[in-house]
Amino acid sequence: MENTDSGFFTDYVIAIVGLGLIGGSYAKGLRKLHVRSIIGIDVNQAALAEALADGSIDEASNDGSQLLGEADIVIFCMAADAMMAFIGQHRQDFKQGALLTDVAGIKGDSADRIRSLLRNDLDFVPGHPMAGREGSGYGMSRAEIFDGANYILVPMEGNKPEHVDVIERMARALGCAHVVRVGAAEHDKLIAYTSSLPHVLAISLINSESMDTMTRYFVAGSFRDGTRVADINAPLWTKLFLSNKDNLLKEIDRFSASLKAFAELLSDEDTKGMTQFLQQAALRRRELVHETNPR
Amino acid sequence: MENTDSGFFTDYVIAIVGLGLIGGSYAKGLRKLHVRSIIGIDVNQAALAEALADGSIDEASNDGSQLLGEADIVIFCMAADAMMAFIGQHRQDFKQGALLTDVAGIKGDSADRIRSLLRNDLDFVPGHPMAGREGSGYGMSRAEIFDGANYILVPMEGNKPEHVDVIERMARALGCAHVVRVGAAEHDKLIAYTSSLPHVLAISLINSESMDTMTRYFVAGSFRDGTRVADINAPLWTKLFLSNKDNLLKEIDRFSASLKAFAELLSDEDTKGMTQFLQQAALRRRELVHETNPR
Repeated sequence: MENTDSGFFTDYVIAIVGLGLIGGSYAKGLRKLHVRSIIGIDVNQAALAEALADGSIDEASNDGSQLLGEADIVIFCMAADAMMAFIGQHRQDFKQGALLTDVAGIKGDSADRIRSLLRNDLDFVPGHPMAGREGSGYGMSRAEIFDGANYILVPMEGNKPEHVDVIERMARALGCAHVVRVGAAEHDKLIAYTSSLPHVLAISLINSESMDTMTRYFVAGSFRDGTRVADINAPLWTKLFLSNKDNLLKEIDRFSASLKAFAELLSDEDTKGMTQFLQQAALRRRELVHETNPR
Repeated sequence: MENTDSGFFTDYVIAIVGLGLIGGSYAKGLRKLHVRSIIGIDVNQAALAEALADGSIDEASNDGSQLLGEADIVIFCMAADAMMAFIGQHRQDFKQGALLTDVAGIKGDSADRIRSLLRNDLDFVPGHPMAGREGSGYGMSRAEIFDGANYILVPMEGNKPEHVDVIERMARALGCAHVVRVGAAEHDKLIAYTSSLPHVLAISLINSESMDTMTRYFVAGSFRDGTRVADINAPLWTKLFLSNKDNLLKEIDRFSASLKAFAELLSDEDTKGMTQFLQQAALRRRELVHETNPR
């Protein structure tokens, strides 16, 4: 029995449901921490075979009915609706007293739905690692996506405090630099600004009518950076945007007001006002880099 | 006398006026190509000393009056107004028949002003390397900023075709992947979309009233990417934006129309329309990566 530097106890059997980019990254990161055993559950046989072959998981299952009973911790790395269906279907398969967590990007009112599906002895601590990379699928997964990342915990009423601590210690052991705890409503409001909005700006930029066949010869770093996340999983993000509609519409309005303020300064040729607007942005960006891992 | 693979003839003496991030990167890149001699001209004595010490330049001058007469090619890496002043002041110092070029981000109507300042035997071929990196100053300069980059040539009436070819071959020899030639008006129109607009979006995003002390714990890659260029040289970019005001205001309008189209689909909960909007963005981004060096 061991503890990592972060205090994360590693003598657990951990099941990961969904071995895509995020789930695979958990498997690879937890493997480096030498946890007792890792179970991979996915309908995708190729992902399971790859994870077994590279040693990231110890046991694999398409279904999970047989193996879930061994898992002290279960991490759901899949779309929220698929997770709900899985929990309902496997209600009787989880180990007595198991700790469950997830990675869903919007928390909304899912707590009540999850609670209604769970046996009373199970504890579900919602989480949201602010980690990822371009692409999708197990082949793109990397233990390093957690390095220096933010990790948000969104505890539900009734969570055992020690279980919330376990997930926090796991996040730190995986390499995350900051772990915060907030309520679901606050989470969704903040995420609308820091994640949904930048995706919306990227897709709106590349969908401008100005995009044409010449554009490719004129792009530099700012356009590449500004459109990087435009290569998006369309059905997944459409669901995410819709599930946080009111917060996102409000953030689009606030962004539009900021853009309009700049456009008016430019239209008025207000050199002093423009310089101040740019200086404020530069200062905020530098503070953000200073305070967080900028990557 | 040697030629590089790109056909760039390397037996030139090349003067670089302005040894900041861009000028220093030219010096380092041209040094790797083994050009005959590199002259550095800058009012900043520390930058000259550093470039001499690391071997990127052979001769240094604060002023240039004595050394300009040796240079077959002069590359101006400084703000447009400072360049005009320098050319006027050193009208008689350039070598007979020298080839001059620049890196200014907006071309506007500067061709006429440049022509009026030049002796008749000199040929000025405007250029714009779509290359750079964060920060500023000689210490941040790197030969690698040109790797895979776009390089735009904006020939003026009266340019000798062979001189335009020399700059094109130099760009390719430095590592640029694409070299295009366009008129000044077309250049400024395209740049407003591919460079100025992404900078404006980054500063408007970080200047939104939603930015607060909690934001730092909720950022992930999309926000970091989307605000990377917000750490901006405020006086320089204010000038650039003002010198391309009409084109930039038009691009802000077109972007706003694109953003509004998305917001309406979201407001209407039009799942199919949103998915199509996202799929179009993903496809465009993938094509851009496929067609260019995405970095």
